[in-house]
Amino acid sequence: MRILGIDPGLATIGMGLADGTIQEPCALEWLTIETKAGLPLAERLREIEDDLNAYLKEMQPELAVIEKLYFSVNEKTALDVAQARGVILATVARTGIPIIEPTPPELKSCITGDGSADKKQMQQMVKMLFRLDEIPHPDDAADALALAAFGLFQGKSASLIA
Amino acid sequence: MRILGIDPGLATIGMGLADGTIQEPCALEWLTIETKAGLPLAERLREIEDDLNAYLKEMQPELAVIEKLYFSVNEKTALDVAQARGVILATVARTGIPIIEPTPPELKSCITGDGSADKKQMQQMVKMLFRLDEIPHPDDAADALALAAFGLFQGKSASLIA
Repeated sequence: MRILGIDPGLATIGMGLADGTIQEPCALEWLTIETKAGLPLAERLREIEDDLNAYLKEMQPELAVIEKLYFSVNEKTALDVAQARGVILATVARTGIPIIEPTPPELKSCITGDGSADKKQMQQMVKMLFRLDEIPHPDDAADALALAAFGLFQGKSASLIA
Repeated sequence: MRILGIDPGLATIGMGLADGTIQEPCALEWLTIETKAGLPLAERLREIEDDLNAYLKEMQPELAVIEKLYFSVNEKTALDVAQARGVILATVARTGIPIIEPTPPELKSCITGDGSADKKQMQQMVKMLFRLDEIPHPDDAADALALAAFGLFQGKSASLIA
């Protein structure tokens, strides 16, 4: 099952594509969609929709794992991320593929066994799980691969959750 | 100039369509887009996009006025509204029409002269401005008409703001 993990953001959206099984997970690629801070918000959101649409069309994932919002230190940032996440959700929903939405503690717990794991622990586990030579960069892409791995673990029940 | 005011929300989106001039403003119609609480968030966002798209295509507004987020008592609600607002912004941006985004105090100040006006004062002014027989219902649609009126006041500079 080909799974796309998406770490929502406005300036940087992390994307991680994986397939294989829980026993043999395979990281196909990881990347980011980026938008420029100088542009009007509406333009940045439209760009996210266009870029994500093109990617979904090209890569044809069968399941999307989009991290849930969970907050937050900075309210302004939270609202920006939330607006971007809305566009991401609607864009993926349009393709008809199932979506699962773990919270950060659910994701951490699934990947490391510890719901309060820190960024470093998560990145190390992503590297180990996918047998990579290095921790994937940038951080947003590593987070997205963790989400894709979550999808591999949960994939069997995805049609029930979505 | 035909102006669409949009009051963002997840369960209820207020829409108010106006044209005319500041001297003779005309409320063409007001309505709401609604989504059901029981549906998955992604589905509700997709519905908002579909309904808004159809409306924009049919009514061809030349300017959209979309209220800015401004916060907030209830964080969960704020994040839901923000996710819906992202979809609304991206959908309108796709049509290419200019968008202006007043904050609630800017809107209140423009319509009533008082940046901290309450809901009742705003609704009374909307009724008077557009020479309506009654206060428009529901509240979200009245708010949207206030936004459209803001657009009439600001319309001349819209191409600069957008």
